[in-house]
Amino acid sequence: MAKIGVAGASGYTGFELLRLLTNHPNIEIVFLTSETYQGEDISKVFPSIRGFVDKKLSSIESVSSEACDLVFLALPHTTSMDKVPTFLSRGTKVIDLSADYRLKDPTVFKDWYSFPHNQPALLKEAVYGLPEIHREKIKSARLVANPGCYPTSITLALAPLVTEDWVDLSSIIADSMSGVSGAGRKGSLATQFSEINEGVSAYNIAVHRHTPEIEQELSALAKTNVLISFSPHLVPMTRGMLSTVYINLKQDMSSENLIEYFQNFYKDEPFVRILPLGEYANSHFTVSSNFCDIGVHVDKRNQRAIITSAIDNLIKGASGQAVQNMNLMLGISETTGLNFPGIFP
Amino acid sequence: MAKIGVAGASGYTGFELLRLLTNHPNIEIVFLTSETYQGEDISKVFPSIRGFVDKKLSSIESVSSEACDLVFLALPHTTSMDKVPTFLSRGTKVIDLSADYRLKDPTVFKDWYSFPHNQPALLKEAVYGLPEIHREKIKSARLVANPGCYPTSITLALAPLVTEDWVDLSSIIADSMSGVSGAGRKGSLATQFSEINEGVSAYNIAVHRHTPEIEQELSALAKTNVLISFSPHLVPMTRGMLSTVYINLKQDMSSENLIEYFQNFYKDEPFVRILPLGEYANSHFTVSSNFCDIGVHVDKRNQRAIITSAIDNLIKGASGQAVQNMNLMLGISETTGLNFPGIFP
Amino acid sequence: MAKIGVAGASGYTGFELLRLLTNHPNIEIVFLTSETYQGEDISKVFPSIRGFVDKKLSSIESVSSEACDLVFLALPHTTSMDKVPTFLSRGTKVIDLSADYRLKDPTVFKDWYSFPHNQPALLKEAVYGLPEIHREKIKSARLVANPGCYPTSITLALAPLVTEDWVDLSSIIADSMSGVSGAGRKGSLATQFSEINEGVSAYNIAVHRHTPEIEQELSALAKTNVLISFSPHLVPMTRGMLSTVYINLKQDMSSENLIEYFQNFYKDEPFVRILPLGEYANSHFTVSSNFCDIGVHVDKRNQRAIITSAIDNLIKGASGQAVQNMNLMLGISETTGLNFPGIFP
Amino acid sequence: MAKIGVAGASGYTGFELLRLLTNHPNIEIVFLTSETYQGEDISKVFPSIRGFVDKKLSSIESVSSEACDLVFLALPHTTSMDKVPTFLSRGTKVIDLSADYRLKDPTVFKDWYSFPHNQPALLKEAVYGLPEIHREKIKSARLVANPGCYPTSITLALAPLVTEDWVDLSSIIADSMSGVSGAGRKGSLATQFSEINEGVSAYNIAVHRHTPEIEQELSALAKTNVLISFSPHLVPMTRGMLSTVYINLKQDMSSENLIEYFQNFYKDEPFVRILPLGEYANSHFTVSSNFCDIGVHVDKRNQRAIITSAIDNLIKGASGQAVQNMNLMLGISETTGLNFPGIFP
Repeated sequence: MAKIGVAGASGYTGFELLRLLTNHPNIEIVFLTSETYQGEDISKVFPSIRGFVDKKLSSIESVSSEACDLVFLALPHTTSMDKVPTFLSRGTKVIDLSADYRLKDPTVFKDWYSFPHNQPALLKEAVYGLPEIHREKIKSARLVANPGCYPTSITLALAPLVTEDWVDLSSIIADSMSGVSGAGRKGSLATQFSEINEGVSAYNIAVHRHTPEIEQELSALAKTNVLISFSPHLVPMTRGMLSTVYINLKQDMSSENLIEYFQNFYKDEPFVRILPLGEYANSHFTVSSNFCDIGVHVDKRNQRAIITSAIDNLIKGASGQAVQNMNLMLGISETTGLNFPGIFP
Repeated sequence: MAKIGVAGASGYTGFELLRLLTNHPNIEIVFLTSETYQGEDISKVFPSIRGFVDKKLSSIESVSSEACDLVFLALPHTTSMDKVPTFLSRGTKVIDLSADYRLKDPTVFKDWYSFPHNQPALLKEAVYGLPEIHREKIKSARLVANPGCYPTSITLALAPLVTEDWVDLSSIIADSMSGVSGAGRKGSLATQFSEINEGVSAYNIAVHRHTPEIEQELSALAKTNVLISFSPHLVPMTRGMLSTVYINLKQDMSSENLIEYFQNFYKDEPFVRILPLGEYANSHFTVSSNFCDIGVHVDKRNQRAIITSAIDNLIKGASGQAVQNMNLMLGISETTGLNFPGIFP
Repeated sequence: MAKIGVAGASGYTGFELLRLLTNHPNIEIVFLTSETYQGEDISKVFPSIRGFVDKKLSSIESVSSEACDLVFLALPHTTSMDKVPTFLSRGTKVIDLSADYRLKDPTVFKDWYSFPHNQPALLKEAVYGLPEIHREKIKSARLVANPGCYPTSITLALAPLVTEDWVDLSSIIADSMSGVSGAGRKGSLATQFSEINEGVSAYNIAVHRHTPEIEQELSALAKTNVLISFSPHLVPMTRGMLSTVYINLKQDMSSENLIEYFQNFYKDEPFVRILPLGEYANSHFTVSSNFCDIGVHVDKRNQRAIITSAIDNLIKGASGQAVQNMNLMLGISETTGLNFPGIFP
Repeated sequence: MAKIGVAGASGYTGFELLRLLTNHPNIEIVFLTSETYQGEDISKVFPSIRGFVDKKLSSIESVSSEACDLVFLALPHTTSMDKVPTFLSRGTKVIDLSADYRLKDPTVFKDWYSFPHNQPALLKEAVYGLPEIHREKIKSARLVANPGCYPTSITLALAPLVTEDWVDLSSIIADSMSGVSGAGRKGSLATQFSEINEGVSAYNIAVHRHTPEIEQELSALAKTNVLISFSPHLVPMTRGMLSTVYINLKQDMSSENLIEYFQNFYKDEPFVRILPLGEYANSHFTVSSNFCDIGVHVDKRNQRAIITSAIDNLIKGASGQAVQNMNLMLGISETTGLNFPGIFP
């Protein structure tokens, strides 16, 4: 039984980690931290866990000497940065769910997060935790930077295409919709029920912080600098994410051909499902699962591929992917604790 | 591995059974039936199951010779009635999720369902499948009538009280709210998104068909005829049910005393959680789990107990309870396949 | 054109007042106040009003010398208390949407709000602004205390009954559901979209502050002390309120008789609609209107009247009722600016 | 007082017409038709209108000899086609809310609707009812084809751009989200609450029937053949529509410049609001109003304009626009009956 800690267990991704780990046969939770709720029972914060975990939440400082094989950091951006070296120095592997170790270039990090990175060596060492792209490196990593939700859905939609010379890399547009849980668990006015319900809106068009993360991964795959236009939208649902991605084709193709190409590309992936002809990705069918469902369409009139990609933003977009990475890092079978279908309805 | 069939797998309770059974270690699914979708892959009807179950849906007639230890009937009311004898005669145990075998008195059945019962002997044999009340009988039953969702939440809220002489049995009022999935999976105008969203309404006040089922169970416990006023309401959410139940007290009591009484009553129950002082049942914390959360309050100014009781209408209110009954009937540990906390948010 | 001010225009009831007043032919808005957003355009706070009102929000202190016939105070509880004398002393009539002037007895106010009332003379003078009960007094009032949303829906459901000797006044139970906008416009964790969506819960059972307000009005009508059990619930919708109210009957009655009795009681009321036999109040059909829809049912098996009562919590439950009161106080036809049907769907 | 008929009053757009007309000072409703509910009171179908309109619904055949200045046809596609000549021959002007008279080219109609057009002369005569583009022609029209909801939001977003030589007309992508009321009022499985809630999905990518309608209008403005990629999505809300539209720029521009250009283009339009720098269109702020809010952004890194455009799909996207057209056709001031802000929250 591996000993696991969860730092930031009172947020949505922290609690989702805890819930997934509760059903995982090969691990044991040794600590849960929360600065806001330290000293309280986790079941006071999340009553649905009552009867399963009876741990109290402690301050991250107080867990410093705890023996632990791997820790998940579900902390706010720029907070993880300084916690990572401490855990690594004790021999604890780290999966960081924040954005702090995702961008390889410290200059790009500073440009988008307005904060200088103070661990450039670890930034270089960190492995970007998208198993479909970096599986082998993840297996031997000490530090994994768990991807953002938008980058997961968009990169999986585009990874099969950007390596090919029959696409126009300058034409990529990613239009995404996210459930509100992606904004985290905090009392903000903008995400109040009455503000969100019965409305959809765009936000941070072309300036969202997930843009460089997507471009970094696509550029590495394409072996050339790729820029995209990325428009996130907020929709009135709790969980789920759908990305509709556009890329021009330089040759005539059918939807059938493109589907076959995608099926082949992802044929060994346990958590990517390519939809049959005529089906569109629907976030409803991935909610509460670790799957990414991908719908493939060709707009023949405009010679453009239109890919739809659905995930649960808190699972494949955060905590489920983190558990998948944990399995790889600890030598556990990759699908352990994640091998269940989503709930419907 | 027990061989299990699911009849009516294309409805919401049928699919929920399938999803729960997919994660159950001791059973094997041998058939799935659907009249509407016969011949189609189940993953075409419910894409979230893709990759887990690749069975085709067949007509219930076509499965007649299939060897099967236990069958779940998730069929419309009055449809199950005639299917039960056929399965029993082949030695297949039956859990019926419809209302057909819940009311012991055929006259009461006819009064509320406007349909004569044609299997009076089996009606007498059938065990009402609320494990907290009838566990021992369920273990040896051939035929279990799985309770309705409202009766589950209301009976569990009142069972500890109706046996006591310090309550006024003539004062019971049950006011319940249900998520829309309780109406089943069919294309009706009344449950269209645009009709339901942003509104709450009462329906079938004092005439809902779950009334006699609740009264039957409470009367048996109280050993006297109990009548209640029951008001169901429809609220704009998919899953979840909350009942707020009122009963006058004949003596002065504190909330603390009454909570302690409830905790003691349910102390050995794996799926009933009595909430601590000051907490109210919230359906959100039971969704996607098999728990019934019960909040206990005394209105001292009016000497009245007010009990709140929350469940997931499709799990503890239907398919989860059915799996709990299956475990009991097949000699499997009662919590197998159901021992997980609910999702949040 | 009467000159009108709105204090607290950046909250939901304040903005709803502004929206209704924008369509009112007999008034002119002279000031809008907000402490949080002072100096900003109202259209920055509520973009839907862009093009209709181009006023800036000012501090309530800065409007002190403004000539104004009537001011609405849409301020937090205990904040209105001290503002009222200032406005009255300048000859400005006041409609207070907070709870500060609703309870006639300062002791009761202190018991429920944990705050001593420092304007007992004005408290005595204030008229409770439920036009269906106090219309004549409202017409000549300087200070009107606008009722709470729960008290409006429950008092209108019970007013026809509590004066009659064929009801049991000790048996009253009011079970209500509210949309989330009733919690006001503020960044709290409890009313975040992800916390509220897909869940229903009870809260403040038997201890909600609207209880004494309802009991005060029912007691005055009944000419005896009336106590009730009141259970509020929060449901996942923005607007709307439904109360289901129970009262025992001392004589046998039919639903038809009771409906006729209600229709007669409210026959001259422009904003109360008694539903025909077999219809249940549905908040959806009152949303965005000033109507209170009342469904009347008799549970013959238990000799109990069950009344359902629906309003839009922000209109008949707050700002629409305030405009109705304003019309009465200024000698304008009562329905002016409010005479429109609700939106559907 | 103009005499007005509404055919198809039991659907959502029909009822929204009725609600808007109820508040219109210059018209009188002479008939309401519904085949499904003929003989019933409209208030039985839509209880929110109770007390305002007490007309019974009649069959469209039975209103044939009714004197009427203008009729709205809110009928299913291909049903309006044959009704139009009858009304015109009696001297009744027609506003058709179906798609039957929107496409000028009968071949294109047949290609997309799989139905031959049998009124080619009237098709030629019909004016496309987007007042911002065709105001003068609408004023003198006998027959107006009211635009679809998607075409309204997308065409208004692109109309200022497609006439300019600094845009790349081959690069247009329109990604839209619609509330569920756009699917109409009928009992279908796909739009059941439980199917829609907590999910977003794409549908009909690159093959939606609104595509040729948008292309027709853009091509006419651009004076060249314009093709677009159009991806509609369904989101879990009742009302509202948001389109995010992409078009490549051939020259460097700032968001400020482009906003100014849009403001100037629409400076005399009563129902188009160009948002200030940094604001994104949010459907919530247009719901229950006739406004189209447009947000203008330039993605400098990719030299691409990204326009967001929000409407209420049932008002500016259907019935409100139809009333706007009626005002123009009858010589009434264009904003009469529509000059109100949206509800919030």
